[in-house]
Amino acid sequence: MDENEHVIFVGSKPFMNYVTGVVMQFTTQNAENVTIKARGKFISKAVDIAEVAAKRFLDNTVLVGSIQTDSEEFKNKEGRQIRVSTIALALLKKQ
Amino acid sequence: MDENEHVIFVGSKPFMNYVTGVVMQFTTQNAENVTIKARGKFISKAVDIAEVAAKRFLDNTVLVGSIQTDSEEFKNKEGRQIRVSTIALALLKKQ
Repeated sequence: MDENEHVIFVGSKPFMNYVTGVVMQFTTQNAENVTIKARGKFISKAVDIAEVAAKRFLDNTVLVGSIQTDSEEFKNKEGRQIRVSTIALALLKKQ
Repeated sequence: MDENEHVIFVGSKPFMNYVTGVVMQFTTQNAENVTIKARGKFISKAVDIAEVAAKRFLDNTVLVGSIQTDSEEFKNKEGRQIRVSTIALALLKKQ
């Protein structure tokens, strides 16, 4: 199984779209784990999605496992060096 | 040593205040680890602070270690049940 199969990238869509996406990966797609990824200002939203999916919708079957942060650096169109933080939250089906 | 001694709570002060606070805990206070905590919309800012402190200011001496998320539930003044996500990022001095 491709390790990128169950990845959800958080952006500007409505909050519940992402929660539903995570829940459905576990329920109808039978995923063992789902990774929620986000950058910059969407990091808070990604944490909320992970917490709501794991604790309200999938309580006692899924937990928030390892969480990684990192930085990406790139030049913007004015040529300035920009740094943006990233997060990856791994949700795991309890064994 | 009190385990809460080196904790920084992120709120609405300027970004660099917190980065400086983290860096000074490691440099002038000789901390072995510093925990950055935040709630709700300040979670993205807390991740940025951890990344900038560890990678730009303390490069090669400090790393972002374990990261924990959680939820707090409480009633607001209108009596509605509110849920807010929290994060704790542990920065560790490399051995």
